[in-house]
Amino acid sequence: MNGAESLVRTLSGAGVSVCFANPGTSEMQFVDALDRTGLMRCVLGLFEGVVTGAADGYGRMAKSPAVTLLHLAPGFANGAANLHNAKKARTPIVNLVGDHATYHLQYNAPLTADLEGAVTPFSDWVRMSTSAATIGADGAAAVAAAMSGPGRVATLLAPSDTGWDPGGVVAAPIAPTPPGAYDRAALDAAIAAIESGEKTLIYAGGAVLEDPELTGLLNAIAEKTGVTVLAPGSNRRIERGAGRARINKLPYPIDMALEVLAPYRHAILIEAPEPVGFFAYPNKPSRLLPDDTARVVLATAEEDGVGAVRALADRLGVRKPLVVDAARPVAPGAGSITYGALAAAIAAALPEGAIISDEGITVGRDIYGMTAGAPPMTWLAITGGSIGIGPPLATGAAVACPDRPVVALQADGSSMYTIQALWTQARENLNVTTVIFANQSYEILKQELFRVGANPGRSALDMLEINRPELDFVSLACGMGVPAKRVSDAAELCRAIADAVKEPGPFLIEAMIDG
Amino acid sequence: MNGAESLVRTLSGAGVSVCFANPGTSEMQFVDALDRTGLMRCVLGLFEGVVTGAADGYGRMAKSPAVTLLHLAPGFANGAANLHNAKKARTPIVNLVGDHATYHLQYNAPLTADLEGAVTPFSDWVRMSTSAATIGADGAAAVAAAMSGPGRVATLLAPSDTGWDPGGVVAAPIAPTPPGAYDRAALDAAIAAIESGEKTLIYAGGAVLEDPELTGLLNAIAEKTGVTVLAPGSNRRIERGAGRARINKLPYPIDMALEVLAPYRHAILIEAPEPVGFFAYPNKPSRLLPDDTARVVLATAEEDGVGAVRALADRLGVRKPLVVDAARPVAPGAGSITYGALAAAIAAALPEGAIISDEGITVGRDIYGMTAGAPPMTWLAITGGSIGIGPPLATGAAVACPDRPVVALQADGSSMYTIQALWTQARENLNVTTVIFANQSYEILKQELFRVGANPGRSALDMLEINRPELDFVSLACGMGVPAKRVSDAAELCRAIADAVKEPGPFLIEAMIDG
Repeated sequence: MNGAESLVRTLSGAGVSVCFANPGTSEMQFVDALDRTGLMRCVLGLFEGVVTGAADGYGRMAKSPAVTLLHLAPGFANGAANLHNAKKARTPIVNLVGDHATYHLQYNAPLTADLEGAVTPFSDWVRMSTSAATIGADGAAAVAAAMSGPGRVATLLAPSDTGWDPGGVVAAPIAPTPPGAYDRAALDAAIAAIESGEKTLIYAGGAVLEDPELTGLLNAIAEKTGVTVLAPGSNRRIERGAGRARINKLPYPIDMALEVLAPYRHAILIEAPEPVGFFAYPNKPSRLLPDDTARVVLATAEEDGVGAVRALADRLGVRKPLVVDAARPVAPGAGSITYGALAAAIAAALPEGAIISDEGITVGRDIYGMTAGAPPMTWLAITGGSIGIGPPLATGAAVACPDRPVVALQADGSSMYTIQALWTQARENLNVTTVIFANQSYEILKQELFRVGANPGRSALDMLEINRPELDFVSLACGMGVPAKRVSDAAELCRAIADAVKEPGPFLIEAMIDG
Repeated sequence: MNGAESLVRTLSGAGVSVCFANPGTSEMQFVDALDRTGLMRCVLGLFEGVVTGAADGYGRMAKSPAVTLLHLAPGFANGAANLHNAKKARTPIVNLVGDHATYHLQYNAPLTADLEGAVTPFSDWVRMSTSAATIGADGAAAVAAAMSGPGRVATLLAPSDTGWDPGGVVAAPIAPTPPGAYDRAALDAAIAAIESGEKTLIYAGGAVLEDPELTGLLNAIAEKTGVTVLAPGSNRRIERGAGRARINKLPYPIDMALEVLAPYRHAILIEAPEPVGFFAYPNKPSRLLPDDTARVVLATAEEDGVGAVRALADRLGVRKPLVVDAARPVAPGAGSITYGALAAAIAAALPEGAIISDEGITVGRDIYGMTAGAPPMTWLAITGGSIGIGPPLATGAAVACPDRPVVALQADGSSMYTIQALWTQARENLNVTTVIFANQSYEILKQELFRVGANPGRSALDMLEINRPELDFVSLACGMGVPAKRVSDAAELCRAIADAVKEPGPFLIEAMIDG
């Protein structure tokens, strides 16, 4: 057995069943091994950012890693932005990156670069395989690394001779390291804060948001003690909707975030780092909580927030999750697609069990709140701030959950970084309904330009508008085999979404925003 | 004056007049400074790979750098693959990459990553600005670095406060370091090899190929002494066509390259490293020249190959360039677009002064040879092996040379990495005629799969075919504002190209290949 086959068999034995791939010559022996063993579903992407973003969506839903197959340093780099998002999300992913044969590297062939240097900033774990005999064990270690703690991006570098040489050895799975224990000493401080009578915030993220029982417990704690519960602005995954506790998020614009956080004298942090500005702005603080707010770190993002929430509830005598049903959304009437009508249309159209990929950026700001009472759903967001995750995230989630409809809420500008994902959706016949929010502008950047104090002229605005020429998403989708339609009326949008989610296969709706 | 304005004024003073941009929040003060000063043409890309590839095309044609404007580590990473190509080409480029404000970095906001680590593998020169007072000087150093030697990729990291803080100082241009002198001692060895009577190869690249006088001198040397002249398979820029010396290139497939190089007892290397396999293959050598061929390094890729060729000619008594005109191409008749008919159609249609962006990969293999007698042209190729350079390369070349038609010879699979460049072509009304070679497969990978000894089954081939669903490039182009047509007949293809290059603005022709 060659090294490549030993690696594929090892990964499969460790539970990896999907490979998102954009291979090149240095990975042909892995393509061959995947083919011969038939152990994995191979999903092709036309661009590496699709591959890595899909692995993120898959890992968030499956809670176990897919493997990506990438080509040398430039191929990895093409997928790095979405790995950055995945790393911040703490999504389990195994990257398999081909490299030149060990003996060939010294000759500096055209595709040679510092591969280890290139992957390190975007990986939590990196290993370079050195032989066919050890690449199986390296693969087992990579899966264990990916599944350790809350989830990690593990990158295995595979010189081509480690794949094609004989002497491969299949390795047994390695048990991952669970998340660290929450801070039991901080539990007393948290209880003291909650019982202080002073304004107290529970700021909770990570795995806590993925279990309706836990968010229900937090909601019950809030109800009983008067504390406020907030989630970070962007999260790996939130289980929410009708019959589940309503979880509000910290707003993105810095002035709003500062205003929301100003009253709190105590902040209890559970699987969420202290809130900081997404960016720095002149004359604004980096840390968003008031300086004299007491911080209690009950569980870091690497620790067991789930245990922390249960312990907190237990200490406070809270036994049962609390749900206060939000209002069921009402479909909008006919009319132009304002921000509010967009949110209403989506909220009213969402079916039971939908998975939402949220890259709505500015235009989508009202949707999260408006969907609180929509049927139970999973909400996936852009965690690392690198735009261009939405189309692939939706793709990967659909691969992981073939029986659930996926709705991609998608800003137009952001979509164009990884629009190639539509092709993979068509190829795999994935039930992804993409709603493009066509406002033809990098609207968020216009707002940011004002936030740094600029008084922009024509050429600055020109760099932030994308309406010259107009992007025609119906043509783009059709060019990649995805049926599509353009919609300008809110009621029609609602119907179009409801129709599309019922049908198998992908569909794209270009919603013309009246913003 | 703030730091951002001092930087823009410094770059402009050093001769930088174009900014290819995909900015984010951390670059808004630079957008503002570009806007207020009006000193540069700002060209927006929808994706960073478009921005960097366009800077490569611009730099190759202008022989001076454009500046890119990129957003933090993930934004840089999105553009890294084409910077890899540019670095291998030795194209002068200045990257301006925004970072979090110096004081904000410690808070690990979502977009925080190891920026310096991320850019280093894809840059020849890296500097992190530390203050508004020094960023002007940093900019002058970056331009000098980019223009030093044969050309370099210089990356300046700019924390946002170095842009918005007051106290900016405009810096005077710094003289770049010219390429090193060629090896005068090796000149004797080169002459001895040429006069040995044994089979001798002159393997010349870099700046030597950019001046028809030099390629003419090499041709005259070959004619007089019986040596063979070859260029590397991929080059930054070749000036060629009717009235210029014919320069053959080393073929890409390793068996062909080995066969071509086998006869030579001496190899004189001028601005070209010793030829090595693009990839390693089982049981094939990495070094393509026979082990016992004597290598004479007359000029490395960092040295003055132009001086070396002149000295060689002088020592050999060659005074005048020699041109033997290749046959003028003949237009193909009606019929399906075979590889040969494709090459003939392109060769017959090329106008005087065309700039060719060559990312034709396998399908385009016959075109280079067939165009030897076409009107004088500039040939730009993919130098670092990272596919997805073609559409942006053509874009940047057209920005640099608004009076020359650009023809992009484009494989279908490769185009999909950076297809967003079409939008920039439409926005800037660039005269780029893109000819998509639609064979609906990663044909080169199929060939590579066989080269590693695989006997591929259905699922392996499935990862190398991109015809399910079929990509419709006419729809894709129209979706980005570029008019397009699909052509299946060779004579019609010839006419379509000839018509498109005559018209201003971009056009895309999807040539359905009968391969």
